[in-house]
Amino acid sequence: MTIAILGATGAVGQEIIGCLGALHVPVDTLRLLASPRSAGATVQTPFGALTVKAVTPESFAVVDYAFLCAGSDVSKEWAPIAMEHGAVVIDSSSAFRGRPDVPLVIPEINGEAALGAQLIAKPNCTTTIAAMAVYPLHRAFRVKRMIVSTYQSASGAGGKGMVELVEQTKNVLAGREAAHTVFAHPLPFNVIPHIDAFQENGYTKEEMKLTLETQKIFGDPSMAISCTSVRIPVLRVHCETIVLETEKAVTPEEAREVLRHAPGVEVRDDPAAKEYPMPISATGKYAVEVGRIRRNLAFGDHGLEFFVAGDQLLKGAALNAVHILQYLLSHSL
Amino acid sequence: MTIAILGATGAVGQEIIGCLGALHVPVDTLRLLASPRSAGATVQTPFGALTVKAVTPESFAVVDYAFLCAGSDVSKEWAPIAMEHGAVVIDSSSAFRGRPDVPLVIPEINGEAALGAQLIAKPNCTTTIAAMAVYPLHRAFRVKRMIVSTYQSASGAGGKGMVELVEQTKNVLAGREAAHTVFAHPLPFNVIPHIDAFQENGYTKEEMKLTLETQKIFGDPSMAISCTSVRIPVLRVHCETIVLETEKAVTPEEAREVLRHAPGVEVRDDPAAKEYPMPISATGKYAVEVGRIRRNLAFGDHGLEFFVAGDQLLKGAALNAVHILQYLLSHSL
Repeated sequence: MTIAILGATGAVGQEIIGCLGALHVPVDTLRLLASPRSAGATVQTPFGALTVKAVTPESFAVVDYAFLCAGSDVSKEWAPIAMEHGAVVIDSSSAFRGRPDVPLVIPEINGEAALGAQLIAKPNCTTTIAAMAVYPLHRAFRVKRMIVSTYQSASGAGGKGMVELVEQTKNVLAGREAAHTVFAHPLPFNVIPHIDAFQENGYTKEEMKLTLETQKIFGDPSMAISCTSVRIPVLRVHCETIVLETEKAVTPEEAREVLRHAPGVEVRDDPAAKEYPMPISATGKYAVEVGRIRRNLAFGDHGLEFFVAGDQLLKGAALNAVHILQYLLSHSL
Repeated sequence: MTIAILGATGAVGQEIIGCLGALHVPVDTLRLLASPRSAGATVQTPFGALTVKAVTPESFAVVDYAFLCAGSDVSKEWAPIAMEHGAVVIDSSSAFRGRPDVPLVIPEINGEAALGAQLIAKPNCTTTIAAMAVYPLHRAFRVKRMIVSTYQSASGAGGKGMVELVEQTKNVLAGREAAHTVFAHPLPFNVIPHIDAFQENGYTKEEMKLTLETQKIFGDPSMAISCTSVRIPVLRVHCETIVLETEKAVTPEEAREVLRHAPGVEVRDDPAAKEYPMPISATGKYAVEVGRIRRNLAFGDHGLEFFVAGDQLLKGAALNAVHILQYLLSHSL
């Protein structure tokens, strides 16, 4: 099996390489692709040392599966070319997520939607992390309303976001002013309620992704979903406060029991032992942490409130893309 | 007029001194009081250089107004003594907030409740910042449900919280492990969904303060209020995502108009110009910033969603205490 990764030098690309190795995906040939600017580097991978090549149409010849993770514009340009060469494309960008003919997939939720498709989109990182916890509860208790407030880390803006946060934090601690080019404002010791572009309805694209993508993945456009997306000075892992109103009555213990059996979810909910979801515990972890599970005080016995933390470079991005590939492989045998 | 401040060397005490000067409160004598451990220091104040004295019962002789801001235990011990000496006590701690005979006051909302009382409590910082924005909307549109998720800074745990965040951030950036004594976990580049002690219902004391104090200040125990309180690596200013369901229909423009006329509120809501509430803009500011005002997507035309940022050492604490004093002075003439 030949796999290509376009965007191999980026934060998500690097994690895809790691996940392919860690999950023992049977890769025969791995092609690392990037823009001419990033090409030429040699990367140590679980499949040997590989040189990153500048992408050309011929890069996709005899490729079985192509991971695209270099942003929306790159995906729009190269997905059609990869598909012409016969590759199945697993796209990490938002380029195709809204298209009715393109499945938007989290294998634990709607893996079957990916079968037979030549172009598969993976959802936004914040959507994926929320959906992993909410879907099992939706199946059990039917979610009517979902209200989310996010705590998103610098690496949501890629490796350059992490670099800017570290460098500018050093500046602030040395008494210098913080500069910013990646984020809309200086991020060190600050909170920025603005991720991606603002839309006509006052929501950002990032916030509307959570609404629209969740509805599409769950196959339920009637779910009422509202989100405030906020960047905070954390390097890795996105956290979210999630409030649900359910159709069926639910107790926190019932919710906890459902989540304990949910794939890809780790219930981390022992306040007495100071155990709850946090970036320092969720970093590098494949599962999404869920904790602080309790009755929401605004919806009576139809309300839940909890906190999630997920490594947005793993299940939020690279790991979910590799899970899609694994799902396809296990269902094509 | 003689004023005493017990806790004068703490973060809130220092800000009370500053607010008394900035607001030209007619102080004749200012007594700075602290525990014997913190006594002896000389502090530059707008009323001259003053030496901090160790508190004794005699400290409160001929005191007109006493600010207590050294924590709950200190307030429980010294409030009765100050009152015996005839002082009117304005207490910053949570010691008396729940007592039915003690008014809990934000002058812009329920100042009249303070009149005639010898002991007045000021609310929790997070409650005050939320209430400043929510009360004008409650008056205009009647809030039925209120869902809050907070982004709270290190100085919510006092000056020592700021010191720990700065010192431990330096450690992390130097590749060393972060220690922690003030917070439940290391705070640098982390998110901790745990402030104050956990209660039986799964909520922390901090979260229940927002629920119970808001109901008391608004005089409406029927309001359904739920909160998740989260500590993040910011030095100063608390932010909050607030979702409201209102009884009357409301548009974002109507809400903005109400808030533009609300005392102590600054509408900072111009996404196109990247203007919205943030710690870097709200630090040192007396007003509470409100922005990102839009229709919440879960409650139709009865829903609002917005973001607030308030300096929790100022309107969240010291400034509100001084505002209580100003209200009493202006209504006792």
